[in-house]
Order: sequence, then C-alpha cells, then structure tokens
Amino acid sequence: MVITKCWQCLMNFPSEFIANVNNVMLQLNKLGKDDPRRVIHSLKVSLAITLVSTFYYFKPLYDSFGSSAMWAVITVIVVSEFSVGATLGKGLNRGFATFLAGVLGLGSYYIVHLISSGNTIMESILLGIIIFLATAGVTYIRFLPKMKARYDYGLLVFILTYCLVCVSSFREHEIIDTAQDRVTTILVGGLISVLVNILLCPVWAGCDLQNLVSNNIEKLSNFLEGFGDEYFGTLEAGKLNKSLMQGYKSVLNSKQVEDNLTNFARWEPCHGRFGYHHPWQQYQKIGNLSRQCAYRIDALNGFLNNFTKTPKEIRSKIQEPCIQMSIETGKALKQLAISIHKMIPPIAAKTHITTSKIYATNLKSMIKTKLWEDTNLFEVGPVVTVASLLLDVVCSIEKLVESVQELSTLAKFKNKENNIAVEDQKEVPQPCCNSSGPQHVITIVPEDIVQ
Amino acid sequence: MVITKCWQCLMNFPSEFIANVNNVMLQLNKLGKDDPRRVIHSLKVSLAITLVSTFYYFKPLYDSFGSSAMWAVITVIVVSEFSVGATLGKGLNRGFATFLAGVLGLGSYYIVHLISSGNTIMESILLGIIIFLATAGVTYIRFLPKMKARYDYGLLVFILTYCLVCVSSFREHEIIDTAQDRVTTILVGGLISVLVNILLCPVWAGCDLQNLVSNNIEKLSNFLEGFGDEYFGTLEAGKLNKSLMQGYKSVLNSKQVEDNLTNFARWEPCHGRFGYHHPWQQYQKIGNLSRQCAYRIDALNGFLNNFTKTPKEIRSKIQEPCIQMSIETGKALKQLAISIHKMIPPIAAKTHITTSKIYATNLKSMIKTKLWEDTNLFEVGPVVTVASLLLDVVCSIEKLVESVQELSTLAKFKNKENNIAVEDQKEVPQPCCNSSGPQHVITIVPEDIVQ
Repeated sequence: MVITKCWQCLMNFPSEFIANVNNVMLQLNKLGKDDPRRVIHSLKVSLAITLVSTFYYFKPLYDSFGSSAMWAVITVIVVSEFSVGATLGKGLNRGFATFLAGVLGLGSYYIVHLISSGNTIMESILLGIIIFLATAGVTYIRFLPKMKARYDYGLLVFILTYCLVCVSSFREHEIIDTAQDRVTTILVGGLISVLVNILLCPVWAGCDLQNLVSNNIEKLSNFLEGFGDEYFGTLEAGKLNKSLMQGYKSVLNSKQVEDNLTNFARWEPCHGRFGYHHPWQQYQKIGNLSRQCAYRIDALNGFLNNFTKTPKEIRSKIQEPCIQMSIETGKALKQLAISIHKMIPPIAAKTHITTSKIYATNLKSMIKTKLWEDTNLFEVGPVVTVASLLLDVVCSIEKLVESVQELSTLAKFKNKENNIAVEDQKEVPQPCCNSSGPQHVITIVPEDIVQ
Repeated sequence: MVITKCWQCLMNFPSEFIANVNNVMLQLNKLGKDDPRRVIHSLKVSLAITLVSTFYYFKPLYDSFGSSAMWAVITVIVVSEFSVGATLGKGLNRGFATFLAGVLGLGSYYIVHLISSGNTIMESILLGIIIFLATAGVTYIRFLPKMKARYDYGLLVFILTYCLVCVSSFREHEIIDTAQDRVTTILVGGLISVLVNILLCPVWAGCDLQNLVSNNIEKLSNFLEGFGDEYFGTLEAGKLNKSLMQGYKSVLNSKQVEDNLTNFARWEPCHGRFGYHHPWQQYQKIGNLSRQCAYRIDALNGFLNNFTKTPKEIRSKIQEPCIQMSIETGKALKQLAISIHKMIPPIAAKTHITTSKIYATNLKSMIKTKLWEDTNLFEVGPVVTVASLLLDVVCSIEKLVESVQELSTLAKFKNKENNIAVEDQKEVPQPCCNSSGPQHVITIVPEDIVQ
C-alpha cells in the first residue's frame, strides 16, 4: 500500500514539477510584460555587480584594497533598489552611517584604551558596556515613526559599523588602515550603484508617485462615469466595461505604496519637471482624499448589485440629475487626473464640479417636492440613499479639487495646454430637471449647494 | 543686517536645540509607555550583541575564527527583529541562502576553473558572465509577489553570498576554509539571535496578529454601540466617548500591518494556544471583512456631522429599531472580538446578530408603512440612508460572523468559558416597534431578513 503510494508520487513528480515550473515561468513572463522596467532593473543590478567585481579581477586594484573589496560588492547588492529615490536613500544612509559610526567607534575605542591603560580585561568590560548602551539606544530610536520612515537603514548600519569597529579594534591593530579601506570601498560601491541606477533608464519614485495618484483618481472617475448608466439601466448591457468600473477597489488599499513612494521621492534630486523642494507630501494628502472618496464609491457599488429590487419607474424619477451628476463628477475626476499627470492647473475640473453642483441642487429640489406621494418609502429608500451618496461624493471631490489646486499652487503648475480647458468650457452647464417631474427655477446659493 | 540675523540665529540655537531634544525625549518616552516590549527588545538586541562579541574578547575563540567572527556580529544585528516570526524568518532565510549560495558558488568556480584550465583572463570573463546571469535572474525573481512576501531577504543574501564566493575564490586560495568559517559564524550568530529572541520575553507575531484583528473589530463595535445614541441624541452630551468612537478610522488602513504579521506568524513554531498549521490566513480574511464593514461605518460617520439638518421628530420615527440595531451589532462585534481573543466559538455573537436581524425586519416594516406621509422626503432622505447603511452593516457583520465561525472550526476553538455565552443568552431578543408607529406582528423569513 505505502509502496504503491510512494510509486504514484514518484511517477507524478515529473508532471507536477513541469506544471509548477510552467506556472512560475508564466508569472515571470507576466511580471515583465506588466512593467518592462523590472527586466531592465535586473540587468542594471547585474551590470553594477560586474563593474564592482573588477576590484577582484584586476590585480593592481586587488592589491591596494585586498579583502576589503568585499564591502564594495556587498554595498552594491544591498543598495541597488528599483527606484532612484530608494537607491539614493539607502546609499546616503549607508555612507553617512558608516562614516559617523566609524569615527565614533574609533573615538570610543581610544578613550577606553586610555582609561584601561593596557588592562585587557577591563578594556573588554568597558567596551562591552559601551556597545550594550549604544546598541540599546539606537535600536530603541529605530521605533520612532519618523526615523523608521527615512533613516531606518542608516540606524541599522550605524549599529553594525559601530559594533564592528569597537570589537575589531580590540584585536586588530592596523584598524585605521582597515577602516579607511572599508569606507573607501563602501563609497565606491555606493557610487557605482547610484550612477548605474541614475544613468541607465532611471526609475524615478517621484514619477511613479505622480502616476499612481493620477491613475487612482482616474479609476474613481471610471466608476462614476459608468455608475449612472449602470444603476438606471440606460445603456444596453455589454456596452459598459464592468471590470474597468471595478478598478476603484485597488484604491482602497493603496496607502502603503503611496507612503513608500513619497519617502523615496524625497531623496531624489531635481529631475524632469520636478524641481527642488517639490511638494511630495501634497500627493499623500491627495491620495488620502481619493481614498475617502473611494469609501463612498464602495458604498455606491453595493447598490449596483441590489438595484433590481427598486422598480425602474421609481428609479427613473431622479434618473436625469443622478446620471448627470455621476457623469460630471467622473469628468471632474478625469480632469484632475490629467491635471496631476500633465502638471497643469485643474481649471477644467472646476468647471465640471460647478456643473455637478448645479445638478445636485436640482436633485435636492426634486427630492423636496412631493414627487413620491404614491410610492412606497421602502422602495424609494435605496434611491434616496444613492442620491445622498452621490451628493456626498460631490462633496468629497470638491475637497479633492481644492487639494489639487493647492498642489498646483505649491508646485507652480503652468497652463501649457490651453486646449484642454477650452475644449472643456464648451460643455455649458445646464440646469436640468426630470422630464416627468415639476420644473423649478433654480437660484444657486453657494453655501447651500452641497449639503 | 546679515550679521544681526546670524547673531539672532546663533542666540536662538540653544533654546531651539533644547526644545527639539525635549520633544524627541517626550516621543521616546511615549513609545516605551505605549508598548514596553520595545524597551525590552532594545535590551535583548544589546544582550545578543554582547554575547556574540565574546568571539573577539576570548582569545581561544578569536584564534579559531579570526576575522570571520565579524560575520557573527553582522548576522546578529541584521537578523534581530521585533517578533519571533520575523527573526526566525530572516534567520532561516539567511542560513539556507548562505549555505545554498556557498555550495553553488564553489561549484561554479570549480567548473569555470576546470574549463579555463589556468587561463586567468578567460576565468575572469567566464566568472563575470555567470555572476551577471545569476544576479539578473535572482533579482528578477525577487519581483514575484509570493517570493517578495516570504523569501525576499533570502534571495538578497543568495545573490550576496554567491557573488562573494565566486569573486573571492578567484583570489583567495583557502576558500573552503574561509567559507566553512563564515558559514559556522553565521549559524552561531543566527542561533544566538533566535535563542535570545525566543527565550527572553518573546514577542509572537501570531499573538500580535490575533490582538490586532480582535482590537480592530472592537473599535468597530465601539462606534456602533455609540452611534444610535449619538445620531438620535438620546444620551446627554458628554456621556459619549467620541474619541473612542472615532477609533475605527485606524481600521481603514490596517491592511499592510496585518499582511506583514501574517507573513511573520507563518514562520513561528507552535506556541501557547497556537498549534502547528494554525490558520493564519483566516485572520487576513477576517481583517478584510472588517475593513469592508469599516467603509460602511465611515459612510455612517458622515451622517453624524450632518444629522442636525434632519428634524428630531423625523429621526425619532425609526429611532427605536435603529438604536437597537446599532447596539446589537455593536455587541455582536464585541463578542466576535472576545471570541477571537479568547479562542472560543462565536456563539454569543450569533445571538446578537439574530436579534439585530429581528430589529432589521422591524425597521423594514416600519419604512414600508405610510409612516411618513406628512413629511418632506428631503428631510426623510438622510434618515432612510442611515437606516439603509445600518442594514448594510448588519449584512457585512453577518459575513464577519461566518468567517470567525470558519476560523473557530479550522483552529478548533473550544468553549472553555460557557458563562460568556450563557450570560449573553439572558438578553432575549424582543421584536420592537417605534411607540408612535403602528404595531406589527412579525414573521421572520430567513431569506428576507436582511436585504
């Protein structure tokens, strides 16, 4: 029995193995297709390591550094990250921390050596105490959120170098030479890594952050542009791209990636359209507001699955302003995404938000009238909720527009492409009303526009 | 002018410096108070480093390992993480990767040495090509999400060791001895680090995950328990703990921490109440459902700031079932939190969810009646929305209960503390109705309970 099972396992192994390998190959292939920069990054890391290996291959170089050349290889491997910001951040952290810890370590050793005046037991005890206190202190400081975000790697390297210098100096006597060699090789390794990263197809975390924030807003826009037609069933089935609409779900959990990219972007020098002191943290703020909006949209999405429970004639009573609001807010978001992406002021978005606010006022007036007298409140409930959530979405998008406006001011966005704004102005906002409902003359009082 | 400014800056410097130092000290103090395990962790790392330093302090130990002792120190510093799971994960990754890369590196070197038969230029070219290909391949594999989550550090160490062994073997001739010393010291370093981490006040990622998921559910519960009274204004101002209610906001962005803890927990051996193959991924699932619920709660929270716009008499029409639903769902969540925390089946939670479903049916019946005939739909709208969101919350909590039930089955929770369930049974669910509204006889049809 056991033998038969083993035999079966053994017979199945090759086919399972091949299936697994095939699966992994497919995944690897997809990774490269999704973002070809990943392939380039792998080649860049290889190139940097090949370059740094010359420390070993060329005898004159090896003779001057000896086994310290190892530190150059280690540095290249550890520092090479995907984006310029991450590589620079790690490189600078490693460089400064190594230098500082080296100097402090040597200083500590000489003081201990002076105090213990040749007594090796006392020397080792004193060194032990100093190392204990320094490590405990720096390890504890690593818990500070601000330190963790930007200098965690530096603090780790500091502990590492400080301990190594202190304990090595106890045994090695040419410690100054060793330290000098190491610092030099680490600097060379870091430099090679940073240069390869910046000079060959650089991946800027700043650009990635900008694209992420802009794409996230576009995903929300895709949902809203489709929502009205989907909820009120005004478009033929099959014409709506449902998977495009569901893209907003990735926005809900994008905080961590945004925070990381912001941290990396802050290490990057001026590049492309991003100057010195570019307001990276404003992108974080915009990202948070996008998520606020995404939570509302998630609530709206819940109604897409239940909407058949409300008769179509009831839904149709507020169809017009709701569809228009959803389209206009979608357009506003799309313009915001373009504005962030192209770095132009969000003028077009403001136009759309003003239009959607007019529809919001219309919607409120319609709800205020006794349009519903003959209907069952239980059936009306979900429709009113959808309307109310849409009003809420308008509110949160208004905040988003303000925030992008702030970014535009801080980063001095310029209106290079007037055509976008002009093209947009053509769509004149027109007060609308449900054809079956009563007509209202609408006076828009700004404070009253959106609840 | 410039001199005056400089002088002012110089004069202000000490006071600013002292203020900054004070600020940092306050933050450090708070860190320790919030979680005293941080202080203990810092001391544990220090202890591990002091232990590993003996490689340098004791001559016999230093004589046998020489400068390879450095690798023990490096390993301890790099591997020592806060939780047992993270430390074990890093330690095992480092250990296996070093061993595998060492063996493969030596193998590659000997094959190259054999092929090039003494021609050093050809040898260096062949080694360069091998290193290039290996690095590019492994760096690319690091992008695979599954690999990144669990084996990222191992892959990094693999590249590092493989490159070091390959290039070192080109120059050093006692490479086998060096490799042996390094592997031994790395193993010793890893072992010291893991032992100190496990034996002295261990921090289990599994426990942290359990507490996080349970606390998050409790935060949602705090909101719901307070929501009814806050929205309908049935409690005196000052009696509600608003900051406690707003605690749910941290749940919205807890995904990353949960995912990390799950990854760490999977490295941990059996400990306390957690057996081998504990279903850690079920906690992730519960976490995701909690966040779904938190999004709805965030939408409800929006109405707390606007509720004064709806007259109290309108709100009071559905006050009774809404308050009861919000309290019962809150209690259900509290019981779920207790169930996860104490590892007992979620029986009590089921009772509360059944009660809240009865109130949900009541609420629906009340909305169905023409209770609102004389009212303005615009004023009723928000109230209906709140009711509908509450019904939605009941739905999502039901899913949460099922998921915790699944966890209870998978992890074989046992009902050790019957008193909780019994105490809970006392609260008999009673069909309720708004005193001002008509009385209904309610027949509960399971499929119809919650929309």
